[in-house]
Amino acid sequence: MQLVGDRGDVLSASLARIQREVDAAFEEFLPLPDDTRARLVEAMRYAAIGGGKRVRPLLVMATAGMYGVARETAVKAGCAVEAIHVYSLIHDDLPCMDDDDLRHGKPTLHKAFDEATAVLAGDALHALAFEILSMPETVSDPFVRAELIATLAGASGMGGMAGGQMMDMVAAQQDYDLRAITRLQQLKTGALLTAAVEMGAILGRVPADARGHLRNYARDVGLAFQIADDLLDHEGDEAKAGKALRKDDEKGKQTFVTLMGAEKARDQAHALVEQAIGHLAPHGPEADLLRALARFIVERDR
Amino acid sequence: MQLVGDRGDVLSASLARIQREVDAAFEEFLPLPDDTRARLVEAMRYAAIGGGKRVRPLLVMATAGMYGVARETAVKAGCAVEAIHVYSLIHDDLPCMDDDDLRHGKPTLHKAFDEATAVLAGDALHALAFEILSMPETVSDPFVRAELIATLAGASGMGGMAGGQMMDMVAAQQDYDLRAITRLQQLKTGALLTAAVEMGAILGRVPADARGHLRNYARDVGLAFQIADDLLDHEGDEAKAGKALRKDDEKGKQTFVTLMGAEKARDQAHALVEQAIGHLAPHGPEADLLRALARFIVERDR
Repeated sequence: MQLVGDRGDVLSASLARIQREVDAAFEEFLPLPDDTRARLVEAMRYAAIGGGKRVRPLLVMATAGMYGVARETAVKAGCAVEAIHVYSLIHDDLPCMDDDDLRHGKPTLHKAFDEATAVLAGDALHALAFEILSMPETVSDPFVRAELIATLAGASGMGGMAGGQMMDMVAAQQDYDLRAITRLQQLKTGALLTAAVEMGAILGRVPADARGHLRNYARDVGLAFQIADDLLDHEGDEAKAGKALRKDDEKGKQTFVTLMGAEKARDQAHALVEQAIGHLAPHGPEADLLRALARFIVERDR
Repeated sequence: MQLVGDRGDVLSASLARIQREVDAAFEEFLPLPDDTRARLVEAMRYAAIGGGKRVRPLLVMATAGMYGVARETAVKAGCAVEAIHVYSLIHDDLPCMDDDDLRHGKPTLHKAFDEATAVLAGDALHALAFEILSMPETVSDPFVRAELIATLAGASGMGGMAGGQMMDMVAAQQDYDLRAITRLQQLKTGALLTAAVEMGAILGRVPADARGHLRNYARDVGLAFQIADDLLDHEGDEAKAGKALRKDDEKGKQTFVTLMGAEKARDQAHALVEQAIGHLAPHGPEADLLRALARFIVERDR
């Protein structure tokens, strides 16, 4: 990927570092058991370790970092969010869902193992997210633990990711307009990205009523992220993306690109990023990583 | 079902009451949304409302009741455990897993809806369990909330139900002995039953080191429950069970019945129930419901 100037270099380093840290944390959370559960844990490790941009853990870490949260704590919370993200990809890739063969440039889990193991590994990663957040070793204060869990559970359930995925599954038959697609994507991808930022703020003990500007940042970044995804799906390079593209087009699904056209969608994504960065005005240089992350989200090529 | 004497009548009334209460709570937790997520919520309601013995919520309620916990609180926590149970049944019934067509006497979820909706409805019920437990309206004390969530997450993940299901999936190729089957079932069904009892005690603010006898009760009841299940699978009535039976036999899987023989398995189940009841010796009549529940578990015919 091409990133501009100093900011880009800082971001590249931050991404590389969080990728190593998240991998290391999953290694720790997923030791191979000495019985026939080993196949399940191997499958979880296959999906969770080494792969993915780790945008969600970086959002947790970058937000928590503004408030002086210990990095190790933020990485664990970020791992919980990532476990939810990885489980959702495993289930979305299943033959009965999007039926994808390739993810992060390698066979999807049900191809590398089998469907039953993929269902189960997704379920176990889903549970792992809440196991991580409920460990006193992750966060000692039970108030903070309970709030993190409430935020993540809300973002992953029917009022968040699972609800958005359902809306998406019926999308080909629905002729959604721009308003409906926006709502769908706010649930399907936006809710978890917003949860990541919010969890960083919870770790930083920012009171709920002082998180408004961060939620606004996350909402705009989430939409920009999805528009960029639609653009990549429409005109990206499959080899770089490491997955099949142009599937929405084939299914006749409406996306931001089909509804707005590629050029207007690109303008909109950039406008959203500037708007997102505007919400960070109360912050000084401590928010530079969140600003760089917002720009990365529309400039990435995978 | 035939239950003996007064105790049986008390139990029948308790089961009927908790069934109504759990149904009502799921009605409240699962309002139909006014958008295309409706199909997902319809599927969740189809699986969660009206059906099932509600043994797990009754275990929560009966334990919490010994310590004077408000019934409404125990019912909500019981609903969270039941949401995990129902999600696991939905996923276990999938074609790629046990491929079952019938559950509680009606078509399984993927038959009544479709496979993708079944995967997603299971996922959303999984998240719902943690959403319920993280609501301050369920339990106001965040210490208690955090401990409930840790207990349920531990019981549902790779160290509990999902791990046990994995061991079960490879059972036909493994030639497990009695020790391995016991371990498998302690994870697959025992962990969640134990969590139900433990969550009742957590609600009752029983310190962790004073829950040993309750955990012992739950462990013995859990094993008795599974032996009874194997007996029902081996010699039960499909119409009463409301699901296909003798599938383990067909697959050549080892069970308590194949390993011990039906007669010895039955004796063992009864011995475990008496042992479970023995663990309740420190309690007076306030534990009568737990005692009756233990007996019911081996005497049930479905």
